[in-house]
Parts: sequence; structure tokens; C-alpha cells
Amino acid sequence: MSNKIKLGIVGYGNLGKGAVKAVKATDDLELTAVFTRRDPETLELDDPSVKAVHIDNASDYKDEIDVMVLCGGSATDLPEQTPHFASMFNTVDSYDTHAKIPEFYESVNEVAEKNDTTAIISVGWDPGFFSLNRVMAEAILPRGENYSFWGKGLSQGHSDAVRRVEGVKNGVQYTIPSEDAIAKVRSGENPELTKAQKHRRVCYIVAEDGVDKSTIEETIKTMPNYFADYETEVNFISEEELARDHSKAPHGGFVIRGGKTGDDNDQLYEFSLTLDSNPEFTASVLVAYARAAHRMSQEKQFGAKTIYDVAPAYISPKSAEELRRDYL
Amino acid sequence: MSNKIKLGIVGYGNLGKGAVKAVKATDDLELTAVFTRRDPETLELDDPSVKAVHIDNASDYKDEIDVMVLCGGSATDLPEQTPHFASMFNTVDSYDTHAKIPEFYESVNEVAEKNDTTAIISVGWDPGFFSLNRVMAEAILPRGENYSFWGKGLSQGHSDAVRRVEGVKNGVQYTIPSEDAIAKVRSGENPELTKAQKHRRVCYIVAEDGVDKSTIEETIKTMPNYFADYETEVNFISEEELARDHSKAPHGGFVIRGGKTGDDNDQLYEFSLTLDSNPEFTASVLVAYARAAHRMSQEKQFGAKTIYDVAPAYISPKSAEELRRDYL
Ligand SMILES: NC(=O)c1ccc[n+]([C@@H]2O[C@H](COP(=O)([O-])OP(=O)(O)OC[C@H]3O[C@@H](n4cnc5c(N)ncnc54)[C@H](OP(=O)(O)O)[C@@H]3O)[C@@H](O)[C@H]2O)c1
Ligand SMILES: NC(=O)c1ccc[n+]([C@@H]2O[C@H](COP(=O)([O-])OP(=O)(O)OC[C@H]3O[C@@H](n4cnc5c(N)ncnc54)[C@H](OP(=O)(O)O)[C@@H]3O)[C@@H](O)[C@H]2O)c1
Repeated sequence: MSNKIKLGIVGYGNLGKGAVKAVKATDDLELTAVFTRRDPETLELDDPSVKAVHIDNASDYKDEIDVMVLCGGSATDLPEQTPHFASMFNTVDSYDTHAKIPEFYESVNEVAEKNDTTAIISVGWDPGFFSLNRVMAEAILPRGENYSFWGKGLSQGHSDAVRRVEGVKNGVQYTIPSEDAIAKVRSGENPELTKAQKHRRVCYIVAEDGVDKSTIEETIKTMPNYFADYETEVNFISEEELARDHSKAPHGGFVIRGGKTGDDNDQLYEFSLTLDSNPEFTASVLVAYARAAHRMSQEKQFGAKTIYDVAPAYISPKSAEELRRDYL
Repeated sequence: MSNKIKLGIVGYGNLGKGAVKAVKATDDLELTAVFTRRDPETLELDDPSVKAVHIDNASDYKDEIDVMVLCGGSATDLPEQTPHFASMFNTVDSYDTHAKIPEFYESVNEVAEKNDTTAIISVGWDPGFFSLNRVMAEAILPRGENYSFWGKGLSQGHSDAVRRVEGVKNGVQYTIPSEDAIAKVRSGENPELTKAQKHRRVCYIVAEDGVDKSTIEETIKTMPNYFADYETEVNFISEEELARDHSKAPHGGFVIRGGKTGDDNDQLYEFSLTLDSNPEFTASVLVAYARAAHRMSQEKQFGAKTIYDVAPAYISPKSAEELRRDYL
């Protein structure tokens, strides 16, 4: 038997697929099985050595899996799946309904404390690394202001909205941080900026044959909540161009803090991600924190944990000596 | 008596002065005294409420100070001061002789473990936040390459070197990351780059009256180790311009990791600092980690610790609930 940390993946969507690949990129982790609510036979696993198992049989794996990487959706899957799995396994998830995180934490913490498991919740990039940088920047530079910018990124909700417009055959929407707003923040003037002032929206639309494109453009640009408050750009392209240029799920963004120290010194702290694949990156974060969940559970640090509770050394495969010698 | 965490500062140089200001920017920390090897009467403390005390009397403050913020120099002060103070107090320092960190860690750890103190070593920005980001980026994106760029920053060693050139009355040198090199790294091609390919050097020189400036320029540009391998620019300015435009100690830089996930997706992770004042920023980091040293010592996490061992929540004045609710 290998000494590797044994992982299971629960849910085989974008994140689940990304997690299979992320485990392969490591030397100290291995994948035991992927669990799904669907007929396991129907999962197209790229790798024949990985087992697909029905989620109802997960409890059979209690002694074979160190950490379950939960890849379900935040809306309805995780509020149910994380407490369920945390009663049997150490877990890690990317729950991202920001407003409901406190209650999600409570429900997971109760189960994890009761069952002596370690459950790291809401890791990824936002929540996740963006959250981490917001807190660290503010702890170091208490006098200042945090700014989070999202994009360039494909927004699922806004893409759905443009596709519902009459005459639209297909389409995508990117959220793009405003260069002007970023420049203002970097200048240290700590401006007040609404979400609409920080971002613009760019749509690529495939129109039905023969429809009036200017009407589509007008409908999108004036759509309340989604577009009306934003600087919005609408481009018309062909179905082929959409397939060729817009089939990835890029995302990313910036966390910037403009702080002051002493009398009047500007100190700029900046973190950014530019991701070709949002789900593959998020899955890579989940897998690194699975390593942490295993180690913290071995040290009996049980209960629900967030990214703020995890000492960075736990996510690295390197030893403490190596980190001090080669990275500090 | 207040509930604030009580700090002492050891050494009143650039960092020590910055630490006095950094403590003032917090609500939960207070300064008890500044300790110095010089005659305490001679220290010009901006704030009359802060006591100046001779370093030999520090042991009298064992019950009055929770954490000592060590602001001595890395070359000779800290190798002696950190073990000495860690035998009596929790400590935090910014020891930055990278090659000697492993032995420094061992010497501090031995004392701290023996005396049940918590000693956080080598925090600041590099070592410090840059080190943290090198490790976190690699843990998440194991397939990839880390790049650290330094600058735009005033380099003490190189400024000293130009000031030793014949005919130079005064001068400063800035290290500046090469825009070309940064662009290459951001493009995801993971280039091999020497330190000289990643940076250029810009000097501002005040020449003695009547000397040949082209000889000075030539001498600087061909100086082995310091400049010969680099793209170097030499500018001549007046003493007034030097005083007006070059009296701050700006620094900063970038840590960038270009990583790949899945088949061929580029994932770019980037951290950067743009600092008007290197010592004030470093001191602000020290002060935030002093908060962590106090809390970890209360939880009996004794011994020498690095930035990798400190869970991020420890450096924030906010409660765990607030962090989950407002920042995650
Ligand atoms: N924190 C962050 O930074 C961050 C970033 C990105 C995403 N997220 C979160 O991650 C969650 C999951 O994202 P995702 O893109 O992986 O969602 P997804 O592809 O929709 O997958 C969610 C679940 O749906 C089921 N599913 C997937 N494909 C299916 C199909 N073809 N037919 C039927 N069911 C299918 C899978 O469960 P079964 O296998 O059990 O059927 C899967 O676990 C999101 O809800 C989001 O909240 C967080
Ligand atoms: N990790 C990082 O990112 C980072 C960043 C910046 C700096 N650092 C480290 O921080 C160390 C301290 O930097 P610094 O700029 O504060 O050094 P500094 O100004 O030279 O001060 C070092 C010590 O020299 C003494 N001193 C200061 N001014 C003096 C004066 N006018 N006359 C006589 N003695 C004086 C002070 O001790 P007494 O009060 O006891 O005399 C002080 O503690 C550096 O060596 C560097 O290694 C680390």
C-alpha cells in the first residue's frame, strides 16, 4: 500500500473533472473513487483506473478514503452534502453563497465536531484566495480600503440572461474590470466605487437569421439589474466563432488594498488571478486543501475550518525544513 | 488596565520607528517601551508617552510585555538578539539573510521551546509575504514556475557602490523589474530568466564639480557583479533634486507563478507590493504577526515559527465570526 493521502471526489461536474486532473499533478495524493448521484456506469472518466461509485455506497469507503473532495453545486448540493459527508469523512468544499456562509459553517461545524472530522469549507478563489488576501492586506495595513474586481470572466448568470433575449440564438457574457477604476485604486486615492463603476460587460451574441440586431443590442443594454447600470458592449458573431473563441471558462480578478502608513506613505498590496479555466483552478485549490484537511485531522484539529484557520504549510507537499530552506 | 496586547520594540532604526507608527494604527495593540543599546535619553521618540529604556533593563519588563518586536539588523543584531529575547519573551523579527535562515531557525527554536515562548521569525515582505505566495502558488499549481521580481526599489548595497565611484558626490540606485521579462512570464511561456534578465538598474548621481561625467557613467556600467551584467541607466542630477525626489525608501516587487492545469490551461497567480516606504511596511507586518505570536503563545504553540506556520486568522484583529461573515 502506498503512503499517499487517499481522496474521494463527490460529484462529477466541472469541478469534479478538474479535481481528477489536479490529483494527477501531485506526487503525494491519490484518487480512490469518484462518487455520483447518477448511474456510475454513465460517467465518462478519462482515466480507466479511477472507480465510479454510486454516492449511496460512499459509507463503504470510510476506511479507504482520508478526505472527500466535495464538488457539488453551492445552491442545493453542498448545504446537504457537506454535513452528510462530514459525519463520516474529512471534507473540503468550495461553497460560494457568500451571504449564507455563517449558517453553512454552523451546520457543518456541529457535525464535524461531533464526529471528529475536519471539514474545510469555502475554499477556491472567491471565496478562497481572494478572501484570504482581503483579510491579510487589512491586518497589515489597517488604514486603507479593500477593492475586489472580478474578471475578465465568463459569467454564467449574465450569459443565461442574454440567451433569453428574443432573437438571440446563443451567446456569452464576460465581466471585465474597468481599467480606469483599477488605475484610480492603484494611484492610492481610495475612491468610492460601485460594482458598476468597477466593471464593464461585454457580450458575444449569435443572432437568429433575419432578426434586427439593433433591437437585441438595445434590449440587452437596458436590461435592469443585469446591464442597465453598466457600460455594456454587444458584439455579434457567428456560431462557429462562438464555438472557436468562447468555449473556455476563463475567470479571475484582483484584490487590491491601498493603504497608508506613517504620515503619508502609500502602500499598495495586490493579488490577482488570470485563469484560463475557473473550475480547474478551483479544483486545484480544493485538492491542495484536502492535503491540509488530512494533516489537521491527524493533529486532532476537528470541526469546520475556513481558509483563515489553515496554516499555509499544511497545503504544501514540502516539509517544514524544505520550506524554510528553499522558499523563505 | 486595558485589554490590549502589550508590545515592546527592540532597536530604534528605520523598522523601529515604523513599528511605533504601525502600533498606533491598531485598536488592540499598545506600546509599552522602546529598548535600545544607545543612551535611551538620546532617542528622539515622536511620542512623549512612549518610554525609552536601555536594552539591559529589558528583563524587568517580563510581566509587562506580551511580545517583543525585534527591529535590529539582520547582519549581526538579530542572530544574537532573537535567541536572547526569545528566552524571556514572545518575539517577532524580520531576519532576512535567506541563506542562513535554517541555522537561525534552529538556534531560536531551541531557546523558545525550552522557555515556552513563541518566536515568529523572518516576517516582512521578502522573507515574508513573498515567501508565503511562492509556497501557496506552488501548492495549488504544482506544474509551473515561480518568478520573484524586486523593485522598483532603492537598493542600499548598490547605492553604496555608486557612491564609492571616483567623482561621485552622492547618489542612489533603483532596481527595476524588466517590463519585457514580466510580460514574458505573464504570457505563460515560463521562460528561463537570470536575475540580470529580470531587472534593470537606474542610478541618479550627483557629480563633483568639474569631473568627467562620461567616465563616471562608464565606471558604473562596467562595475563587475553590481552592474556589468545588467542593463544600466545613469542619470546626473543636482544635490537639490536628489534631496527632493530620492529621499524615500520605496520598494516592492512581484511574485508570479505561471502554472498549467488539465490539458493545457494557463493559470496565472500574481502577488505584488508597491511600497512608498519599505521599513514602514515591514514594520506593519511585524506588528500584525506580533498579534499572532501572542495568540499562539496563549494556545501553547511554543517554539520558533515561520509565516508558513501561522494560520492567517491569527494576524487579524477581527473575530472568526466577523471574518466568515464579512470577508469570506
Ligand atoms: N469558491 C470558488 O471560488 C468557486 C469557484 C467556482 C465554482 N465554485 C462552486 O462550485 C460549484 C460546482 O461547480 P461546477 O461548475 O462543478 O458545477 P456543475 O458542473 O454544475 O456540477 C455540479 C453537480 O452537478 C452534477 N452534474 C454535473 N454534470 C452533470 C450532468 N451532465 N448531468 C447531471 N448532473 C450533472 C454533479 O453531481 P453528480 O455527479 O452527483 O450528478 C456535480 O457535482 C458551484 O456551484 C460553485 O458554487 C466555487
Ligand atoms: N523581511 C523583510 O522583508 C525586511 C525588509 C526590510 C528590512 N528587513 C531587515 O530589517 C533589518 C533592520 O532594518 P532597519 O532599516 O531598521 O535598520 P537600521 O535602521 O540600520 O537599524 C538597525 C539597528 O541599528 C541601530 N541604529 C539605528 N539607527 C541608529 C543610529 N542613528 N545610530 C546608532 N545606531 C542606530 C538600532 O539599534 P539600537 O536602537 O539598539 O541602537 C537599530 O535596531 C535589516 O537588517 C533587514 O535585514 C527585512
